[in-house]
Amino acid sequence: MATGYSEDKTLGLAQVEDERIDYDNRRPSSTGSDTEALEVVFEDQGVRRRKSSLVPSVAPRPAHFRQKTQCFVHTLLEKHDGIPNKDHSASYEGLAQERLIDKDPHGHVHGSHHSRLLTKKQISDMAFGIRELSKKLVQIKLKLNVRNIFILGKAHDETLISHSRETTEWLLSKEPHYRVYVEDTLEQNRIFDSEGLLNDNPDFRGRLRFWSKKLCDERPQTFDIVLALGGDGTVLYASWLFQRIVPPVLAFSLGSLGFLTKFDYELYPQTLSRAFGEGITVSLRLRFEATIMRSQSNKKTDNKRDLVEELIGEESEDHHTHVPDGTHNILNEVVLDRGPNPTMSTMELFGDDEHFTTVQADGICVSTPTGSTAYNLAAGGSLCHPDNPVILVTAICAHTLSFRPIILPDTIVLRAGVPYDARTSSWASFDGKERTELRPGDYVTISASRYPFPSVLPLDRKRQDWVDSISRTLQWNSRQRQKSYKEWTA
Amino acid sequence: MATGYSEDKTLGLAQVEDERIDYDNRRPSSTGSDTEALEVVFEDQGVRRRKSSLVPSVAPRPAHFRQKTQCFVHTLLEKHDGIPNKDHSASYEGLAQERLIDKDPHGHVHGSHHSRLLTKKQISDMAFGIRELSKKLVQIKLKLNVRNIFILGKAHDETLISHSRETTEWLLSKEPHYRVYVEDTLEQNRIFDSEGLLNDNPDFRGRLRFWSKKLCDERPQTFDIVLALGGDGTVLYASWLFQRIVPPVLAFSLGSLGFLTKFDYELYPQTLSRAFGEGITVSLRLRFEATIMRSQSNKKTDNKRDLVEELIGEESEDHHTHVPDGTHNILNEVVLDRGPNPTMSTMELFGDDEHFTTVQADGICVSTPTGSTAYNLAAGGSLCHPDNPVILVTAICAHTLSFRPIILPDTIVLRAGVPYDARTSSWASFDGKERTELRPGDYVTISASRYPFPSVLPLDRKRQDWVDSISRTLQWNSRQRQKSYKEWTA
Amino acid sequence: MATGYSEDKTLGLAQVEDERIDYDNRRPSSTGSDTEALEVVFEDQGVRRRKSSLVPSVAPRPAHFRQKTQCFVHTLLEKHDGIPNKDHSASYEGLAQERLIDKDPHGHVHGSHHSRLLTKKQISDMAFGIRELSKKLVQIKLKLNVRNIFILGKAHDETLISHSRETTEWLLSKEPHYRVYVEDTLEQNRIFDSEGLLNDNPDFRGRLRFWSKKLCDERPQTFDIVLALGGDGTVLYASWLFQRIVPPVLAFSLGSLGFLTKFDYELYPQTLSRAFGEGITVSLRLRFEATIMRSQSNKKTDNKRDLVEELIGEESEDHHTHVPDGTHNILNEVVLDRGPNPTMSTMELFGDDEHFTTVQADGICVSTPTGSTAYNLAAGGSLCHPDNPVILVTAICAHTLSFRPIILPDTIVLRAGVPYDARTSSWASFDGKERTELRPGDYVTISASRYPFPSVLPLDRKRQDWVDSISRTLQWNSRQRQKSYKEWTA
Amino acid sequence: MATGYSEDKTLGLAQVEDERIDYDNRRPSSTGSDTEALEVVFEDQGVRRRKSSLVPSVAPRPAHFRQKTQCFVHTLLEKHDGIPNKDHSASYEGLAQERLIDKDPHGHVHGSHHSRLLTKKQISDMAFGIRELSKKLVQIKLKLNVRNIFILGKAHDETLISHSRETTEWLLSKEPHYRVYVEDTLEQNRIFDSEGLLNDNPDFRGRLRFWSKKLCDERPQTFDIVLALGGDGTVLYASWLFQRIVPPVLAFSLGSLGFLTKFDYELYPQTLSRAFGEGITVSLRLRFEATIMRSQSNKKTDNKRDLVEELIGEESEDHHTHVPDGTHNILNEVVLDRGPNPTMSTMELFGDDEHFTTVQADGICVSTPTGSTAYNLAAGGSLCHPDNPVILVTAICAHTLSFRPIILPDTIVLRAGVPYDARTSSWASFDGKERTELRPGDYVTISASRYPFPSVLPLDRKRQDWVDSISRTLQWNSRQRQKSYKEWTA
Repeated sequence: MATGYSEDKTLGLAQVEDERIDYDNRRPSSTGSDTEALEVVFEDQGVRRRKSSLVPSVAPRPAHFRQKTQCFVHTLLEKHDGIPNKDHSASYEGLAQERLIDKDPHGHVHGSHHSRLLTKKQISDMAFGIRELSKKLVQIKLKLNVRNIFILGKAHDETLISHSRETTEWLLSKEPHYRVYVEDTLEQNRIFDSEGLLNDNPDFRGRLRFWSKKLCDERPQTFDIVLALGGDGTVLYASWLFQRIVPPVLAFSLGSLGFLTKFDYELYPQTLSRAFGEGITVSLRLRFEATIMRSQSNKKTDNKRDLVEELIGEESEDHHTHVPDGTHNILNEVVLDRGPNPTMSTMELFGDDEHFTTVQADGICVSTPTGSTAYNLAAGGSLCHPDNPVILVTAICAHTLSFRPIILPDTIVLRAGVPYDARTSSWASFDGKERTELRPGDYVTISASRYPFPSVLPLDRKRQDWVDSISRTLQWNSRQRQKSYKEWTA
Repeated sequence: MATGYSEDKTLGLAQVEDERIDYDNRRPSSTGSDTEALEVVFEDQGVRRRKSSLVPSVAPRPAHFRQKTQCFVHTLLEKHDGIPNKDHSASYEGLAQERLIDKDPHGHVHGSHHSRLLTKKQISDMAFGIRELSKKLVQIKLKLNVRNIFILGKAHDETLISHSRETTEWLLSKEPHYRVYVEDTLEQNRIFDSEGLLNDNPDFRGRLRFWSKKLCDERPQTFDIVLALGGDGTVLYASWLFQRIVPPVLAFSLGSLGFLTKFDYELYPQTLSRAFGEGITVSLRLRFEATIMRSQSNKKTDNKRDLVEELIGEESEDHHTHVPDGTHNILNEVVLDRGPNPTMSTMELFGDDEHFTTVQADGICVSTPTGSTAYNLAAGGSLCHPDNPVILVTAICAHTLSFRPIILPDTIVLRAGVPYDARTSSWASFDGKERTELRPGDYVTISASRYPFPSVLPLDRKRQDWVDSISRTLQWNSRQRQKSYKEWTA
Repeated sequence: MATGYSEDKTLGLAQVEDERIDYDNRRPSSTGSDTEALEVVFEDQGVRRRKSSLVPSVAPRPAHFRQKTQCFVHTLLEKHDGIPNKDHSASYEGLAQERLIDKDPHGHVHGSHHSRLLTKKQISDMAFGIRELSKKLVQIKLKLNVRNIFILGKAHDETLISHSRETTEWLLSKEPHYRVYVEDTLEQNRIFDSEGLLNDNPDFRGRLRFWSKKLCDERPQTFDIVLALGGDGTVLYASWLFQRIVPPVLAFSLGSLGFLTKFDYELYPQTLSRAFGEGITVSLRLRFEATIMRSQSNKKTDNKRDLVEELIGEESEDHHTHVPDGTHNILNEVVLDRGPNPTMSTMELFGDDEHFTTVQADGICVSTPTGSTAYNLAAGGSLCHPDNPVILVTAICAHTLSFRPIILPDTIVLRAGVPYDARTSSWASFDGKERTELRPGDYVTISASRYPFPSVLPLDRKRQDWVDSISRTLQWNSRQRQKSYKEWTA
Repeated sequence: MATGYSEDKTLGLAQVEDERIDYDNRRPSSTGSDTEALEVVFEDQGVRRRKSSLVPSVAPRPAHFRQKTQCFVHTLLEKHDGIPNKDHSASYEGLAQERLIDKDPHGHVHGSHHSRLLTKKQISDMAFGIRELSKKLVQIKLKLNVRNIFILGKAHDETLISHSRETTEWLLSKEPHYRVYVEDTLEQNRIFDSEGLLNDNPDFRGRLRFWSKKLCDERPQTFDIVLALGGDGTVLYASWLFQRIVPPVLAFSLGSLGFLTKFDYELYPQTLSRAFGEGITVSLRLRFEATIMRSQSNKKTDNKRDLVEELIGEESEDHHTHVPDGTHNILNEVVLDRGPNPTMSTMELFGDDEHFTTVQADGICVSTPTGSTAYNLAAGGSLCHPDNPVILVTAICAHTLSFRPIILPDTIVLRAGVPYDARTSSWASFDGKERTELRPGDYVTISASRYPFPSVLPLDRKRQDWVDSISRTLQWNSRQRQKSYKEWTA
């Protein structure tokens, strides 16, 4: 396939692969890369628009634009399932085309605001498809054909740099066809000493490579696996780097194991030998796609604008009220809060085409199941098993006693915004990053992302994994405390 | 099958069947039945047993024992989808056979403890199947061929008896082929005055009928629809009456609308005319199947028995440790608590084959999404959209600060029990009823039921329905309160 | 005075009395008593009565009835302050007279229901007086002239019996004028082996004595100090034993230190030598006096009785509606709950002469500051420093979102009762004991007790004591957990 | 002056009454002012200093520096109690002298950081004295000799300006000796139209006056009463204006009554006639005195500074580590939070000389009992009766499960600061105002203020006042909601 929907032209309509989850196969590419993807493909048609919809001229899309799904994980899964390969030769081009309209220098994928153009049914189908894939993945072992290994650690941590170097050397020595990518800031780093490494091992030349944020954005399929060194924060960093397709992430902890770091770094040689040899099991973690929508100035009506009316009222005029301003795929949570303001925020909360409620609070935390143990927990939300296909909405210091944490289906499109008559702005942050001001009239759209996060599970205890993490981190069954409490009532 | 139950006349019983979520093999049958059901059928084979498994001699099952799914809802759904009817002739025998082992005079379906014999994968598949069915149902309109109408109200409430009579008379007058079933206690009731009703309307004879708990247990397929009059409590009562297959329940509120009572009784003629004429939309509410498991005395080991070891340890001896003692299908929640004891309970909590934690608390509330607004909320749990396929586990007054409400997938089999060394018993209750003592060593198994609860939604606002209920009941956006809070920080 | 410290006269020590919080008139007495007390004395006059007041004939009181306060602690305090002795000769008669009406075989002090006859101002003055005394006590060191030592341990715990014996022997050997009282059940106990002890140490005869609940009730002044061995539960037991005057309680922990057990048993010889030699510091812990009030049947009005009207309405008829049925002095909390009922309770809550609210919940926990770390914490209440003169009211699983834990002044008289139209009874328990049914119409009165609980503080770290307990028990600053959380957002 | 520090007379300075609570009487003054005060006086001696103490050269104090307490409330109270008037002629001078060292152009009273120099015993005595005064005040009726009336409303609210004008005209017409002070911004206000008012009523000249923040700071004794128009926010504004001595505040609500606005504006003529004629009852609300302490740069040790060691460690060097930077008297709460930072804050919390814990949270809310219904409630704190002498410490979104709201005595000096190794600053705000950055090493000292806030209570229902507010604002006993909940379990 040469482009998105190029061959569909003659059909006039969507003879595409709406494969829900498109299990693509490997194919050659000019970069020698074996590309992979994990994405869902939809047609862009028949969508009801409202005043707050996109301004067409800002984001022109090809008539039959399509997005492609490529992922080694799926390739293998497909084979594993005995499903015949389909012809997806155009997939890389499709992706390239999509790039053309993704202009954000920050690497934020503007294209993904297109979720706003998905019909409710499409989002629902996509979410359902990912659930089904996720359910299958966790039950099978994926054999990797590893060539390109991505190493991630915090570049300012000297210990992590040493570990990165150690792991790099071990990998490059182990197999002559391995290529190892480390962060480009390490190229000149004194501790990493890439020059020394290459001098000592001339055959590493050409195989020690350096990645940049740009490469992660443009060629995520390059990498067969990501090795994250550090803690849960490093895994969040991986999610931030790979805003769309995410290679499987195998996370090593340098201290105690966390919710997302499930492998002890001390044992990395055994772990990697086994994972690359026997295969891996992957848990697909739900991510959210959050798009900031900016209110467009509108001289005639500025004094009497009403966010609720604009978002769910009937379209009465022929113009658009909001334009997208950046999209983030997040693994933990989107937080809207009062930022530097000393007083509470007022926010309007919408689910699909309904106005849920006006929230008066310090803020709102919209969390994935993965994020349920992070800020959501601090705000009073529940612990949530990562397999649940849900969105957790928790108010931060609600100023009304009646607001309680809410669990919503991941098929809902949530919108949270600042009313036009608010006295102050609110601030949005995405996995604790990219803090952005939301002025009165602005809002954020949050929905299940087409790009879930594949987290590599320990081979031997995949089932009990989450409960283990909870028990360990929250110190369930800590005998000391239990004893104390027992005394009180004994 | 051509219509609802129209051809059932000759059979004297609905022999229809739906295979939408039937994972079992087809096989011939002598009756050529076309029954309907909403149930999942599984083979009883290849299941790993543990010490705590059923004693085989207590519940012998035919080699290819199967359970049948019958529901008018599914019949129509099947047609609606254009899927050809399948040959399900064996189904009636299957059901009859199951009956043989359901001896509980209370109407509790002993057979359903068989969920303990389902493999993890079967339960997971079943839960997934119900989710998919549920998703489809909510999007379509079901046309009913109504003949047998079941009326439910609290028999001791004089107002409700009058309303029951009024509705009965209206229905019997409306269509000559309607049969109306009211509670058998009303047959001699002075206010209902069935004799007077029949004397005034001789053509009602034979069409005014009386139901008993026994009929609900044995012939739930008889009824095309249940009209519940009262409040959410009446809907819980319907769930209790129909422990397996539940006809669609259309619930009228006599006061303000509730979470489950979505129709205003004042408008019953319009509501019923439209529902029976245009069709209904049904939301399938997840129910749980909870089975009490009694520890069997065991002279040799009684002094050193350990519940954790018995439930998840390896099977070391050739005997069974527990036997089932009654199963309940519940719509809201299972509660285990300290009952009349003044001190807290200690309970062991298991998910599938793992020991989650030892809970020290006043009790545990295991709630469906439907029940999230009931006791779960009082215990500090989250509000949960009824479409979420989850189990909500909330401790009641936990004596450890680290226990937080947990959201688990509905594919998990949960077990909660009293450790052998507990100083006191705990008590279990099911939708606030059937309070039962759990002695040390006893436990309760809780998993997604094969018998969801079909709740009829308002035709015109199915989407926003849940949010409406929440806003109304929790008084979100109550202007008075908001103002007060605003003042504080203004 | 014939008892208490009467034999101390010749010692020229501690014949003192403290009137710090005696708001009563002095008056002569025949005994020339030199009693001590920690109690507040009030006149019984000028009290407004309501329908729910006591039936006079049940509890006739002398015109100038007064209650006496006696406590060695105060004696010493007085001297320490250089305040001259006052003539309090009448005090013993007052106490004796009170005894006449305290018939409860259980040792519950019926007389203490008289708090209902205290005017609001009297209760307020009393509470204020205790606060002031408490504040002074914690700042000074009390020198004890120890003669009679009370040893308390759980009689069914073999380890504790051994420790009791060890401590007894150590004490009796240390000083020839020490008398040691152990529980009378130990007299024939095999492990304690009192016969052997006396045979080995003939000079212990007459100095090893045995206490009974009756002695604690009638002659609490006998004991100079209570040594509690065990855990916080043992300290609660001490509070239960000494329903009125409580000797200073020095509590040893046999495991980790608790909120009330502040001394390590391992170090008992050093601890006791120093405490008896250098003196002790005492923290007066607020106790509550809780009286069960039973609704009296009243043929004429039974069908339309209203608890709110009876408790705070105007007195319209010449009869009493309730009679007292037992009083408990509690150190931790009074709990009213639904007991064995599966549904919530409805309770009316009153503060002084106001109806606060109707509580719909599993129950209510009314806690002292000392009890704030026990059931109150499990029910969601705050941690409360024991010096705060407050009452903590916390609903247990409130069924209304608007109920939040409330902190009230200890000068308020709280009443909580079951409305006449309640469908079920509620149950009351007192420090987790004495579980009692409250039928519709019954209520419990709770107010600050005249008999606080003197807890001996560690000499060297009295100030930070509470914070230490909190940090230790709740594992504040547990490094492991902090690290985990840090990772999440780092 | 006959008492207190009579020996100071010869010093020509600080002829002080350390009366704990000084009940002063009126006396002439050069300004014609009838001064009042509500303040506590202490000697500055014998205070242990630590590294973090004040730099002496920054805040030199006279050897016998004193602060004066003057308040009409106390004057009357004194008379009422039959206590002979004392000679307090020096008081105004004392106050003037204090002014000399209060340089803050903002009107913040730097002198009040002196609380850091109070010994623990002095603070405890002061707090206890205020409690006692408060208890007396609420029981008596104060007759005011009203001359100077202060009117307060939000100057930007047109409705409030009209009401201010209406009230002003009514008062000036009512009694020829009344002087009415309105905000100086109203002098030229078109709506208030002071020129028109004076032209129409020539006798108002000289009696219509204008107040400024400066006058409130320097001459608070000028005003006999403050009439606040608006909502609870206006009452907070009154507290902000009067940073030390606060005249009695009678607050009118223009909408529904609030926690602090207890009079309906509609009835102002009756309310004021009665209050000025019959007298008022005053509730003294606890305020906190919060002082920002700035870490002083210290070249030698900057790299290894530890806040815990500096605040509670032993003084090892002869220099001071922190200097005060502004003090605020607050009525609701001090909040320390993460401000614009997206991540949580880490704060060290100290009580007196102990390190309580390291708090990892979005922030800390330190609330007065009055503030318990404001931000404290949103953060999960308890409702607290305003008479309780306590400090409420509540974490905002604590990142450790073990942190629970804490109730501390108002005799404790609390300190909360940012550790030197914190990655970000925190922000402090005071009653939601004066947002200030706290850099690593800075901290805030919070203790009971010597300047409580006298709130005028409704004459006829002083007792039930707080419960009324709670019930009304939180909608306790809202019948609609109760019904819904009842249904669930019925």
